[in-house]
Order: sequence, then C-alpha cells, then structure tokens
Amino acid sequence: MKGNKIMLSEYEVRQAICEIGKRLYAKGYVAAKHGNISYKYSENEYFCTPRGVSKVFLTPDKIVKVDANGKKIGNGKYDPTSEVTLHIRMYKENPAIRALVHAQPPFSTAYAIKGVAINDCVLPENYVYLGVVPKGAYNKATGEISAELVDCMKNKKGFLFEGTSVFSTGDTLENAFDNVDSLEFYSKMNFIGSHIPNGASACEAVSDNSGNEAFVKAVTEQIIRELGK
Amino acid sequence: MKGNKIMLSEYEVRQAICEIGKRLYAKGYVAAKHGNISYKYSENEYFCTPRGVSKVFLTPDKIVKVDANGKKIGNGKYDPTSEVTLHIRMYKENPAIRALVHAQPPFSTAYAIKGVAINDCVLPENYVYLGVVPKGAYNKATGEISAELVDCMKNKKGFLFEGTSVFSTGDTLENAFDNVDSLEFYSKMNFIGSHIPNGASACEAVSDNSGNEAFVKAVTEQIIRELGK
Amino acid sequence: MKGNKIMLSEYEVRQAICEIGKRLYAKGYVAAKHGNISYKYSENEYFCTPRGVSKVFLTPDKIVKVDANGKKIGNGKYDPTSEVTLHIRMYKENPAIRALVHAQPPFSTAYAIKGVAINDCVLPENYVYLGVVPKGAYNKATGEISAELVDCMKNKKGFLFEGTSVFSTGDTLENAFDNVDSLEFYSKMNFIGSHIPNGASACEAVSDNSGNEAFVKAVTEQIIRELGK
Amino acid sequence: MKGNKIMLSEYEVRQAICEIGKRLYAKGYVAAKHGNISYKYSENEYFCTPRGVSKVFLTPDKIVKVDANGKKIGNGKYDPTSEVTLHIRMYKENPAIRALVHAQPPFSTAYAIKGVAINDCVLPENYVYLGVVPKGAYNKATGEISAELVDCMKNKKGFLFEGTSVFSTGDTLENAFDNVDSLEFYSKMNFIGSHIPNGASACEAVSDNSGNEAFVKAVTEQIIRELGK
Repeated sequence: MKGNKIMLSEYEVRQAICEIGKRLYAKGYVAAKHGNISYKYSENEYFCTPRGVSKVFLTPDKIVKVDANGKKIGNGKYDPTSEVTLHIRMYKENPAIRALVHAQPPFSTAYAIKGVAINDCVLPENYVYLGVVPKGAYNKATGEISAELVDCMKNKKGFLFEGTSVFSTGDTLENAFDNVDSLEFYSKMNFIGSHIPNGASACEAVSDNSGNEAFVKAVTEQIIRELGK
Repeated sequence: MKGNKIMLSEYEVRQAICEIGKRLYAKGYVAAKHGNISYKYSENEYFCTPRGVSKVFLTPDKIVKVDANGKKIGNGKYDPTSEVTLHIRMYKENPAIRALVHAQPPFSTAYAIKGVAINDCVLPENYVYLGVVPKGAYNKATGEISAELVDCMKNKKGFLFEGTSVFSTGDTLENAFDNVDSLEFYSKMNFIGSHIPNGASACEAVSDNSGNEAFVKAVTEQIIRELGK
Repeated sequence: MKGNKIMLSEYEVRQAICEIGKRLYAKGYVAAKHGNISYKYSENEYFCTPRGVSKVFLTPDKIVKVDANGKKIGNGKYDPTSEVTLHIRMYKENPAIRALVHAQPPFSTAYAIKGVAINDCVLPENYVYLGVVPKGAYNKATGEISAELVDCMKNKKGFLFEGTSVFSTGDTLENAFDNVDSLEFYSKMNFIGSHIPNGASACEAVSDNSGNEAFVKAVTEQIIRELGK
Repeated sequence: MKGNKIMLSEYEVRQAICEIGKRLYAKGYVAAKHGNISYKYSENEYFCTPRGVSKVFLTPDKIVKVDANGKKIGNGKYDPTSEVTLHIRMYKENPAIRALVHAQPPFSTAYAIKGVAINDCVLPENYVYLGVVPKGAYNKATGEISAELVDCMKNKKGFLFEGTSVFSTGDTLENAFDNVDSLEFYSKMNFIGSHIPNGASACEAVSDNSGNEAFVKAVTEQIIRELGK
C-alpha cells in the first residue's frame, strides 16, 4: 500500500514534504531549524525531514528515508530528525495516519506552554472538526509517553505537546498541514477573543465625527471621488 | 447583463476569483481550506470556489460554474463550495451585489465569535463607508436565516456572521476583497485601540537617555554618519 | 531643481512611487485602496498615486502628474488622489520635503485614533531621530488645518493625523518610507512594551524541567544531534 | 583560518550576509535601515553591512570589508556600519564567534526596552539551548561597555541590548540568524503566554452549538462534503 488515495512516487513524497516545510516557514510556524514532518510510505518505509536544516531550505534530496525502527535507508548525506522514533510511534498507535507535522505555531504553542487545553467551543466548525484540543506529555529524559499523549495519537487531528509544541496528523501531507493551520487559527481566535470585552467594542476614539453632517458629507464625497461609488 | 462595469469573459472571472483567493491566503484571512468566493455572472450563472481546495492552490479550471439553484453546470471535476446556496440567497436579497467573499480574517472573526458588533466610530472614514458592522445569525442545522442576517445581506458591504466568520460584498470581485480588507482593518484598529490606555502612552522604558546631552550628541552623530542626514 | 541628491527622470520617479506602494502593501501599512504617496519634482510639478487603485497594483503609467494647484497635467486616464491638495500644502509648509507617505500602519494608526501622542522615549534612537510623535487635526468638512498640524508639517519626519492615519516625510521617497517604517516600529514597541509587566517576565510555564538533570541531558544531546553543536 | 567548518570565498560571505539581511527584513526583524550583520573572515578581515542601506536592498558589492580596527579595506563606495567597532569587540571577547546579527525583532526588543531579562524556563528546549536571556548596557555617549554586556559577549548565543535591540552570535551566519530567530520565538512565547489566563481558555463564544445534535450533524455533513472525510 503506497498512499491511501493516490499512489505517490518517492520523489513526489519528497517534493510534498518540501512544500509543506516551506508553507510552515512562510506562516511563521517554525523558527530557526525547529519542526519536523514525516510521511508513512509503507509499513516499513517512512520519509522525514533531516536534522539541522531550516524548513525553508528543504529540497527533495535532503528528505531522509527510514525504516520502521527509524534507521536511515541508504547512505545519503542527511540524517533523520532526532524525533523520528516519536513519529513512528504515532503511526503505530493510529494506522489511519499517513502524515505528521510537528511545529510551533505561536498561539497554539503558547497554549501548550501554559498547559491550557482548548476546551471551549470557540469556533463551532473547528470544534466539531477538531474537537477539544487536548494536551499530552512526553518525558524526553526517559522516553516515556504519557497515557494522555497515546490517547491524542490514537484519536486527534491536532493536539498540544505539553510545554513545547504542536502535532497534527493527516491522511495526506496537505491535510496534516491544514490541521495544524486550523488548530493555530482556533488557538488564535481563542486568544484574541479572550481579550475582547464582552458585549461591546471598547475602543473610544478621539474624534468621532460620525454625527457631524458636514464631515459625513465631506467623507462621502471623498469616497465617491476616490472609489467612484 | 454580464458584469456591471466592464463585461468580463468567463475566463477573466475565473482568473479574478483565483487572484482574490491568493490575496486572502497571503493576508492570513483564510486558514486550511476555509473560505469561499463567488461572482454573479448573470441571473442564472454564478462562479464559485470549489470544495476542498485551499485558496492558495486555486487555478481557473478549478472554479465551478453553477446555476441559480447552486447546481453545477457542466461536468467538471470540481464541486461547488457547500455554501453556494447561501451565496445565491445573498445575491437575491441584494441585486446590486456581483461578488461575495466569505472569510475568517483574525480580528473581525474574533468579534464575530464573541458576538460583538462594531458600533463605535473608531475610524471615521471606515464608519462612514462601512457603517456599523452588524452581526447576523444563520442556523446551519435548519438552514434558517435570521432577520438580522437578511438585513445585513440587503444593506451592508461587510458584516459578521455570528459565531464563525465574515462576509463582504461588492459590485466587483476586487471591491468585495477591499471591503473585507477594510472591515478587518477596522476590527484590528478597534482591538488594538481598546488596549491603548487613554491619554498617554504607557510604556516605561528602562533607559531614558533623552535628557542626557552626551548621549543625544552620540546618537545624533551616529544618525548623521549612518544616514547621511 | 529636480531631486535634491540625484536628478531622477520622470519615469524613475514613477517607478520609485510604485516600489514604495508595494512595500507599504507588503508590510500591511495600507488596506484596500487606502493610502497615498507623492513626490515633489519641481515647484510646479508633483507626482502622486491615483484615485481608486490599490497600492499593490501600481504601475508607472498609473502615477499622476499634477501642478502646484493639484490639477492633473496631461490627459491620462487616472486622476490624482483626492488628498493631493493636502500633500501640496505640506510641501509648501516645508520646502525641504521632497516625498510624502500617507498610510495606516496598524499600531501608529491605533495611537492616532486614540489621540495618544507618543511622548515617551521608548526607544532612545528613535526618540532622538523622530522626537516626540505629535498629532495634528484636519477638518475634512471645512478643509481647515489645525495649527498643530501645520507645526507637524514644518518640523516632523513622521506624525499622527488625529483620528485616522499617519504621515511621513522625506528628502527622498525611500527616506519617507523609512520614516513611516520607523514610526510604526516605535509605536509597536510602545504598544508591546506597555503590555510587558515591569521587572519580570510573567509567563508561568506548565513544565519547567530546567532543574531536571536527566531532562537537561536529554535535551542537550538532542540539540547536539540535531544541530551538530 | 577562514571559516570554521567550510572555507567560504569572500564572495560567498558577501552573498550569505545579503541572504541573512533579506531574511531579517522578511521576518520584520529590521525596520527602515536598522540592523547590522558581520562575519569574521580572519583575525584581521571582517565583512559587515554598509551604512545607510536597508537590509532588503543588500547586494554582494555593498558589503564592506574592514580590518581589526574597523577601518575599511579598499576604496569601495560604501562605508561600514557605524557599529562595526562594537562587533569587533565582541569577536575579541569570544574567539569562537564567527558571525553576529544585530536586529530589532519586535518581541525581544520590547523586552530589551523594558529591561526585562527572560529568566523563566518558558520553553524548555529554548531554555536549555539559549539559557537565561540576559541584558547588557552600552553607553553610546562614552563608548563604555558594561561588565554585564562583556559577560553576554563571552557566553551567550543571544542577548538583549538594554533599551534598544538584540544581538545574536553564531559560528556561521546561518546559525547567528537561527539564534536571533529562536530568541524572538522565545520572547514571543513569553509574551503571548503571559496573556493566557492560567488553567482554562477564557474566550466565551456567543454561539456554542456543540451540544446541539442537529447542528453537529449539519456541520459534520458539511465537513464531509467539503473535505471528503
């Protein structure tokens, strides 16, 4: 089995990972050389981003192929991301997943750092689609994965990695990107929304001329001149 | 009648929708595959964005032509956005509208989520032009459109879709884009403005050297050296 | 006299105005079709942006040439911005000015809307260079220009247009752009700075493992593997 | 010795400085003509950015070569940044440094302005890597460098220049860029995190339909139609 909808060639997978890397960089979801992306090509063939390369500089030849133990296949110049085994663990916990994105979009990562799961139904569509955005912990020192995190791996399209970052999953690379994008939008709405006072817009402008007939006439004439309408 | 000012060819309409899609994506007004755009070509011919395609990947062949019932014309590969009937309803409520943008710009969408209409005259020009930015509700479960929303459809260049998103209208696609852009700017000004303390700038810097004559001289000399002025 | 440092051809001026327009758009300093730019070519020849064109779509042929009364020279298709007479007034108040940018960068415009002049020496270099950023009012209904605003026109590289927007001046178009860019940076620093608690960083993270020796070792090893250092 | 890992040609150094300049500009880390970048080519050969050129307009020919006293080598048209002597001082304090970036990324610069060192372990990986982000003062009037700043120069990959800006160091130009990028991300997380209420997400949305079965069904059907899943 090679790709659940359309069978991609190895080169197309490499290209698609680069494309996602560039979109993550362009949206400010990965700083410096942070973040990693992977794709499950078959039960024993995975592609992932290399160690030590900024996502903006990815090219197909830099993408690394590994086996189910995370061991590099072939003798290419680049080594797999040091988090490749965590990715493979996720593919094992949920066989429907074909692609993973691990990134640090600013708003969702801030929620991860604060350990605040997004439980509110801020944006109903996002809520129905992503559900509660939970958090799960991973002990980098012992390699231990919390039961919470295993549950995230099994069930969620996007979740918070307690204290550090965000994971998203997908049946394709593009859907994994879209899930991290939705999750970040959801977090951003939660953040901005929590700073809008309830029930009224709060900005008191210095020069409210809207009741000034001459002013309204002058502005209207200007709009008509400027925009022709 | 085909376009109210300049008669556009079908291909030009498809191209213009793609252009607006790319601008929405570039400005961060649509995440993932969210958002939709439409154009009324004649009473029984409409063009809209396809289901399941990110706005950054739009190409003219992906734009879908539908009739006044939202039924796809022809047998192209792409299907119309699932919200096409809502768009057509709006064109019926206000015959002057030729283009619609449905998006999620972050600040105005946050106001929509909080159900906070922007009543203040924050920016007089925007106020005169857009007026109060109202909100209207739509019951996705029953398909029922609130009286408030019908009123928005009839009268406003931009309005909040309670709980989810933002609509803007225009006599051309570019003007519909400009209206969502103005609305988002208006919302952003309202948000930032509501977090500026009244009457004084509040940041206390640690190192105010502005009264230090030697410092001012050193900085001035540096500016002269650096900028030649 | 045509350009105070290097004599630009008319075509070069048109090109430079387009370049500044695109940079203003790219930085989010002008939404929709807002904003205008001008250049004083000689005592009776000025170039300015046209009415009703987004700054991202400027091309040299769309730039309009006007005389000292703001009347279009020649019979080109495009008309001058409706604010051209205000620009010319500024050139008269301060003969050293050769270029003007009128824009709405989000943070400085929010200060303008609130009528809050930036008096603090937030960023000493900016303070020495730009000085206090004052505000001045203009009565669009009567055309009356406040004494405050005349003073801004005579003396400042950047200032707030009370209630609406921001002006910057320069001896070249690029310097006028840099001045609005500096002013916006100054305003942004003032805004962000006013939301940082004094004396300590306030974010309490959920998972402070920094005192955990095994964790620090694991992270350090990962960094060494990942970055090779 | 010319470059600690790979020996770069002079032209490659000039190109790499331009690349870093463009990335700083694209990320909004340098406004107007602010910021400077340098590279230590040998004990008596340094390359740095020129005075009075925006980082977005850098080209290899504009990069300036100086000696260990900051004196321009050759008679090129461009002069070195007025801060070149401060850069050279840093190279002397820490011989392992090969590249320096001096910039004004908005969040870390705001912390610098407030004189707030980032002591918290907001993001454990960043903390382990960058450690506490200290601040150090420099007296522009007298040229005096504080003991704090000397300590930063000797020991840190990134630090705050009290009251004004941010410095980062690296063994390569790309690593110096990555360090300022990490530092800004760290500061941004600290800022956003300090505005998220503890323990719960705080946004109360107006229209929580998540318990409404018909609504959930309608949304789910729409998602299935829209995304095919």
